Amino acid sequence: MTTTIYPVAGIRLNATAAQIRKAGRNDLVLIEISAGAHTAAVFTRNAFCAAPVIVAKQHLAAIPARYLLINSGNANAGTGEQGLRDAQASCAQVAAQTHCQANEVLPFSTGVIGEPLPVQKITHALPVLVQGLSADTWMQAAQAIMTTDTRPKIISKQFTLCGKTCAITGIAKGAGMIRPNMATMLSFIATDAGVTAAQLQSCLRHAMTLSFNRITIDGDMSTNDSCVLIATGKSNAVVKSNDDLQTLQDAVNAVCAELAQAIVRDGEGATKFISIEVLQGKDEAECLQVAYAIAHSPLVKTAFFASDPNWGRILAAVGYAGVEHLDISKIQIYLDKVCIVERGGRAAAYTETQGQAVMKQTDITVRVQLGRGDAHATVWTCDLSHEYVRINAEYRT
Amino acid sequence: MTTTIYPVAGIRLNATAAQIRKAGRNDLVLIEISAGAHTAAVFTRNAFCAAPVIVAKQHLAAIPARYLLINSGNANAGTGEQGLRDAQASCAQVAAQTHCQANEVLPFSTGVIGEPLPVQKITHALPVLVQGLSADTWMQAAQAIMTTDTRPKIISKQFTLCGKTCAITGIAKGAGMIRPNMATMLSFIATDAGVTAAQLQSCLRHAMTLSFNRITIDGDMSTNDSCVLIATGKSNAVVKSNDDLQTLQDAVNAVCAELAQAIVRDGEGATKFISIEVLQGKDEAECLQVAYAIAHSPLVKTAFFASDPNWGRILAAVGYAGVEHLDISKIQIYLDKVCIVERGGRAAAYTETQGQAVMKQTDITVRVQLGRGDAHATVWTCDLSHEYVRINAEYRT
Repeated sequence: MTTTIYPVAGIRLNATAAQIRKAGRNDLVLIEISAGAHTAAVFTRNAFCAAPVIVAKQHLAAIPARYLLINSGNANAGTGEQGLRDAQASCAQVAAQTHCQANEVLPFSTGVIGEPLPVQKITHALPVLVQGLSADTWMQAAQAIMTTDTRPKIISKQFTLCGKTCAITGIAKGAGMIRPNMATMLSFIATDAGVTAAQLQSCLRHAMTLSFNRITIDGDMSTNDSCVLIATGKSNAVVKSNDDLQTLQDAVNAVCAELAQAIVRDGEGATKFISIEVLQGKDEAECLQVAYAIAHSPLVKTAFFASDPNWGRILAAVGYAGVEHLDISKIQIYLDKVCIVERGGRAAAYTETQGQAVMKQTDITVRVQLGRGDAHATVWTCDLSHEYVRINAEYRT
Repeated sequence: MTTTIYPVAGIRLNATAAQIRKAGRNDLVLIEISAGAHTAAVFTRNAFCAAPVIVAKQHLAAIPARYLLINSGNANAGTGEQGLRDAQASCAQVAAQTHCQANEVLPFSTGVIGEPLPVQKITHALPVLVQGLSADTWMQAAQAIMTTDTRPKIISKQFTLCGKTCAITGIAKGAGMIRPNMATMLSFIATDAGVTAAQLQSCLRHAMTLSFNRITIDGDMSTNDSCVLIATGKSNAVVKSNDDLQTLQDAVNAVCAELAQAIVRDGEGATKFISIEVLQGKDEAECLQVAYAIAHSPLVKTAFFASDPNWGRILAAVGYAGVEHLDISKIQIYLDKVCIVERGGRAAAYTETQGQAVMKQTDITVRVQLGRGDAHATVWTCDLSHEYVRINAEYRT
């Protein structure tokens, strides 16, 4: 991960142990956003979305956000009406402590589904949390939002906009219940660049399609996934041209992609990082269809775990992805640079030794060439190990 | 399983060890079909379907089948042009030994993908196989087609048609790479009832939609899946009315459903049998969408393995199934008779003790009531255990 973490002018953070999760472990984070900043967000599309997602959407639609309140250890999902009241009450408590309005606070939760949110514990921890707000506590925040994550995910970069140096720093959590077509687990990214609210939202949506919406660990979509992008404008560098906007977009893309990849690398029980590139499709949709069929196949994932070049399982997944009128004689499949499938079967020059050499690596690229167009898409995933089953069988015990 | 296995007049079988798989283990089966019988079949929809699937389809379209040649230990899939030649050569060898035409033989293979079919070994084993054909070797055939199966799957029943007693007996194999919307792994079913070819094909298609097309173990669709239904007419009971046809349909449905459930119960590493019933949907399609979202969720499956009533994972899977405009306040979710979710959250009367009592069982029903219509659908699946990962990580080693 990065070594230098750049503070973002206009952002202060703090983390504390509210005893929501385990005694003594930080599990509550407050992020303060300077007045005049813009905040963009994308949320899970799960119909059973969590109470904080509903409340955060409402608040964000009403007024610019001034505080983000994030807890781990409890998802406040599947909690019905009580869950909504609890999320609102938490916001009200932050508002009381910071002298803002309740709807200037956005709540976020992650952890076990279906347990009532311990609002009293949160209330009790708030004064310390508010008092200790600091620009230099990104790492503590990254650690406090972890659940089954084994390591914090934090990416920080500088970029030049209008001749000025800007900072962009982001944190993320998530190691299971991760799949495409939604925001992501939780991620909070801030920059001191200046940009309009509309540009910022568009910037986040674009970055998502090449990062958090292209990763999958177990195909399960969470009830709580949220990704937030804040632009404080405190660097005094303001986006004025399309080139400026592209500069900002590139910076956001890079941070999102690196955070997304960090989530896959820390996937529950993951021992391998797999990039799946599908090329020469008719359109991006069918490229993604093929990529996800491979990425979600338990048989392919266990073969990666075993370092077994069982290319037949990859071939089978391509075949059942549901792409109409596939001409299998035109399809080529590669493990890194080794062609494993061509003309409907094992490549003539392929040897098991070649396949094994690639499979032994911890980073592997599967490339599928469909031979029917110019579209392409890339998805990142990990293997399926004994450890995945252990973690998820023992999660609540 | 059944205790009595009824022979089917007009069908003779034999199994032998051709050394395709492991030395000394039966891995080659020949099924002889009497002249005048009808044979219906459904096959995998995988674009990379195996060579024997292509050849069997061609032969079946040309002429009534007289022999089925089935091998385990090698799928003859992903084998390109050579695979087609090998499948055809095997049929020609059977034809030479039995004095029929090559296209009166249907080939079936199951096992490792991508290895050339050892035609010489098959040729070598054929004389013994042909010589030993018998009406009483259904169990030996069921055992010889097993791959990662831990036990043979065989169902046999009698039914009365036009006042005569008919027999229906079927075998199946499959424990992994199993998912809906295709034929199934391998299954061969025969009855001595008489019926037209068109009625027989329709009968098989109907039975599939309530059996093999409603089971899922790992969501992986095989390259070789085939299901064959033979009617020899040797009982002299002939379907003449719609009532007769329904009698036959009921018998075929029962055999298919029991074979399909036997496959799930023997799913790779399975410790639990899970029925997922989705009721009150707008149409069957959305009921299946929800049922499969639950059935394919690794998080739900590991919770079943752990006997953990982690109902939040079921709720999350319902939420991301992709059904438009779900009103979550109307959804109810049950574990057997225990209501776990209502009004968007945990059911008021639910206690962890109730959930645990259900989860401890080896047979569990998840019932989801969507509250938006009259359609329903049922899917059968199993849990995801350490053993699944072990089996599939070590399959080729």
